[in-house]
Amino acid sequence: MSILHKLDQRVQKVKSLLCVGLDSDISRLPVRFLKQEYPQYEFNKWIIEQTHQFVCAYKPNPAFYESRGHRGWKELEMTTQYLQANYPDIFLIVDAKRGDIGSTGKHYMVAVLDNLGADAITLSPYLGKVAIESLLARKDKAIIILARTSNPGAGEFQDLMVNDKPIWQHVAYQVSTDWNDNGNCMLVAGATYPEELKVIRQVVGEMPLL
Amino acid sequence: MSILHKLDQRVQKVKSLLCVGLDSDISRLPVRFLKQEYPQYEFNKWIIEQTHQFVCAYKPNPAFYESRGHRGWKELEMTTQYLQANYPDIFLIVDAKRGDIGSTGKHYMVAVLDNLGADAITLSPYLGKVAIESLLARKDKAIIILARTSNPGAGEFQDLMVNDKPIWQHVAYQVSTDWNDNGNCMLVAGATYPEELKVIRQVVGEMPLL
Repeated sequence: MSILHKLDQRVQKVKSLLCVGLDSDISRLPVRFLKQEYPQYEFNKWIIEQTHQFVCAYKPNPAFYESRGHRGWKELEMTTQYLQANYPDIFLIVDAKRGDIGSTGKHYMVAVLDNLGADAITLSPYLGKVAIESLLARKDKAIIILARTSNPGAGEFQDLMVNDKPIWQHVAYQVSTDWNDNGNCMLVAGATYPEELKVIRQVVGEMPLL
Repeated sequence: MSILHKLDQRVQKVKSLLCVGLDSDISRLPVRFLKQEYPQYEFNKWIIEQTHQFVCAYKPNPAFYESRGHRGWKELEMTTQYLQANYPDIFLIVDAKRGDIGSTGKHYMVAVLDNLGADAITLSPYLGKVAIESLLARKDKAIIILARTSNPGAGEFQDLMVNDKPIWQHVAYQVSTDWNDNGNCMLVAGATYPEELKVIRQVVGEMPLL
């Protein structure tokens, strides 16, 4: 079964495209969680219990755990273990936005795809395909490449024009035509730009977008 | 004192531009370290003791620690604490190649610049200046932006031509003219491309390159 089929099955089951972030900023958690030994984990568990029947995917961002050092990383591990034990059919995206070369990239693969057990990882395209080939080769995992992000100022480089097309369209084109041999690629395309979404659909066809 | 002055002072003191990576792949450590409770930390300490008098900077890459989960992250913390306690005048670069938006980027700032106590962090330019403004505002820290990386295939997007210049030169230009209000920016420019280094020097002047 293709990894994207897992996502598709979940979408069909719950009839929902809702993806819930697990960006549990320790400075913003309710007091009752802060009193516990693993506040981020307990908060995430509570969020998961309130939402699981409506979601196709959960998406923790490691930044919110790394900022608490190894203790935070442990709570991220506990969170993904909880999801795998209780809701293995929900798609798990680790929004790491990593981007590093060959041997180093493999270590991010182990960290996120193997140890955290994510179904998918987000990656920056800036270092090119060759740098992340070991991740693209993982047929059992989805690779989500940043194309057009939705943050303020995202266009500074993403919208620079190369041969009458913005760079983000070149990224989308390369990913859909050259990087996707294993049918496991997806793209980040911010939905705050509906016109651009229309264009990206023309470029990438049916490829799922985050 | 500007943070780049710290680097400069160290370079003058040891008369060396040597930057030593601390990319301690657990699968490649000598057996005598693997027998210890904190193998990566012990290996790093050994490397540091062998090299400190010759180096201006150490540069751990978090990937090699993240791949061991929270235990690895703890050894990265122990390593940076050891450096700060024993060699506070050596420049510490955490080669995280992170790139995320506003609030999330701040958490990477806490993780790397505050908790790990790094003098500098490497960042991807792909999301633009606005996304990483909170990091650029840190006058006490150096921000090292990827311009032209040296990995195979790096040119796939970095060398796309925008108005007769490759994208990596646009990145270098933007960083040196618009992102560097606090005089704390540096650039990654792979020395495997000497011709490009010459060009980048013309664009960025005296800005330190990694």
